[in-house]
Amino acid sequence: MTGESAFIDALRALATYPAARGLKDDAAVLEIGGARLVLTSDTLVEGVHFLSGDPADSVGWKLAAVNLSDLAAKGAVTRACLMNYALSGDDAWDAAFLSGLRAALDAYAMPLIGGDTVAMPKGAPRSFTLTAIGEAGPGPVPARSGARVGDILYVTGPVGDSAAGLALLQSADKPNDNPTTESLIDAYRRPRPRVAEGQALAPHVTAMMDISDGLLIDARRMADASGIGILIDHVPLSDAFLALHGGDARIMAATGGDDYELLFAAPPGMTLPVPAIPVGRCEAGAGLRLMLDGKPTPLPERLGYQHAAHADRLT
Amino acid sequence: MTGESAFIDALRALATYPAARGLKDDAAVLEIGGARLVLTSDTLVEGVHFLSGDPADSVGWKLAAVNLSDLAAKGAVTRACLMNYALSGDDAWDAAFLSGLRAALDAYAMPLIGGDTVAMPKGAPRSFTLTAIGEAGPGPVPARSGARVGDILYVTGPVGDSAAGLALLQSADKPNDNPTTESLIDAYRRPRPRVAEGQALAPHVTAMMDISDGLLIDARRMADASGIGILIDHVPLSDAFLALHGGDARIMAATGGDDYELLFAAPPGMTLPVPAIPVGRCEAGAGLRLMLDGKPTPLPERLGYQHAAHADRLT
Repeated sequence: MTGESAFIDALRALATYPAARGLKDDAAVLEIGGARLVLTSDTLVEGVHFLSGDPADSVGWKLAAVNLSDLAAKGAVTRACLMNYALSGDDAWDAAFLSGLRAALDAYAMPLIGGDTVAMPKGAPRSFTLTAIGEAGPGPVPARSGARVGDILYVTGPVGDSAAGLALLQSADKPNDNPTTESLIDAYRRPRPRVAEGQALAPHVTAMMDISDGLLIDARRMADASGIGILIDHVPLSDAFLALHGGDARIMAATGGDDYELLFAAPPGMTLPVPAIPVGRCEAGAGLRLMLDGKPTPLPERLGYQHAAHADRLT
Repeated sequence: MTGESAFIDALRALATYPAARGLKDDAAVLEIGGARLVLTSDTLVEGVHFLSGDPADSVGWKLAAVNLSDLAAKGAVTRACLMNYALSGDDAWDAAFLSGLRAALDAYAMPLIGGDTVAMPKGAPRSFTLTAIGEAGPGPVPARSGARVGDILYVTGPVGDSAAGLALLQSADKPNDNPTTESLIDAYRRPRPRVAEGQALAPHVTAMMDISDGLLIDARRMADASGIGILIDHVPLSDAFLALHGGDARIMAATGGDDYELLFAAPPGMTLPVPAIPVGRCEAGAGLRLMLDGKPTPLPERLGYQHAAHADRLT
């Protein structure tokens, strides 16, 4: 094997069971007895998925949120979760982590039912895994792969706030505390996964996924999985993002990670059960095209969040 | 909070859902739709749960095996698993890990259906999480807590081989390669979880768990969970263990970890569906007593595997 992508290819060769969806979807869908389970498991690593200086309660929240967002993309109802926790040796940090985790589990009705606690060797980065168990709704479970030529592409909210918040935290100057910076940093630290929206949308969409690595890269993944092309002609931005960066930073917003909005395709003319913003359309061909202000725009070299220490998220 | 046990108490306060079984059992039991799921998730950390020098394929095997053993303790049928993998930066190591994992998943019919891959910062210890999903059999799902006064206590095989194998690997002198040492090292590196035995035994037992941390400490956990006392009057040893250590090392065998045999209680006179070795009985009172060669024997100070860098296994 040569590197990460070869490892992931080897994993895919191992994961031939239909429930695995080729390890190319946000979650696995497994039928047991009469139930259709939606299963996902994500790991957060200090220095990779969160900053060492992030407040512990926000890390606990985020661990739940990234997994809840995968359930949202399948329109699943949350059922339970298991957590694997690496004790940090810092009791106050661990307690704050748990309070943030608890807030997210309570907010999204996902009881903790098991897991594992280990003490890492001294100096090891903190890392945590959560496995979320959901139950699919009565209809087909949306995949990334169902988008059809002619479908409209939507997002459930603006993108880029989280990337803007991360940029503030990483800048040399301490950001001023004001409602704008607080809102952006909050988007980075406490994403709100669209679980209710996902459940409402699932019967209406042809394809759905969450935007975890950036609108452009995730849209291209949907295009590739669906065997179509996708045109993005709008990048919706929040007031806070516009206040800080203005509309010229649309590429930054469209390539930033950690948005956790839902990206979905639906036939034109469909009445949607929740508010959503059209961002483009599905077209014949392959790959991604970008038009901004009605003009063809070259794609940036980096379509999304793929920094060196971050391998593909499998589910 | 003060330390690991306080953290685990805080987790238990969070895990009040009945499926969690108070985080005091080998696995969670969750009903969804018509299905009764058995869920467990264990993390292995380099330097804590395996040695840096252990062959990568044996680490992959062991990651599956420790989780399979929890399913075995519930008499569950294996259904699927998710793996969270920290890339090591060493492609050959990762490939060998996968081959060992695959061997275990194939041997126990547990398809891989999802998970996550992350690249850890340089120098971080390797760590891996696997979440196993099983389905309970038709009867009650055995717990640690059901043993009754008068029940006979059994194990599904000898104990101590894994601890003897670990001791060989940790000794200053390189062990001689011979069938005895190979068999003991193999017991440490490639435990065979008793999945089929667990399924066969589940309808007949009053309590069952796997021996992951040592016969004595796990028997005391069963006594505590069941609100009874337990007398251990026999420590079954393998021929390989006896060849290397002789019968005087029974305390080492009874306090070593990583056996992955099943420990269970059943009413006297019960015909068992699989071979098992009586090791004691359940009695009125509380706690653990030990008798060897018919004589009361003081309990060792350390009842099992609880080294500094290893917190309680929750499930």
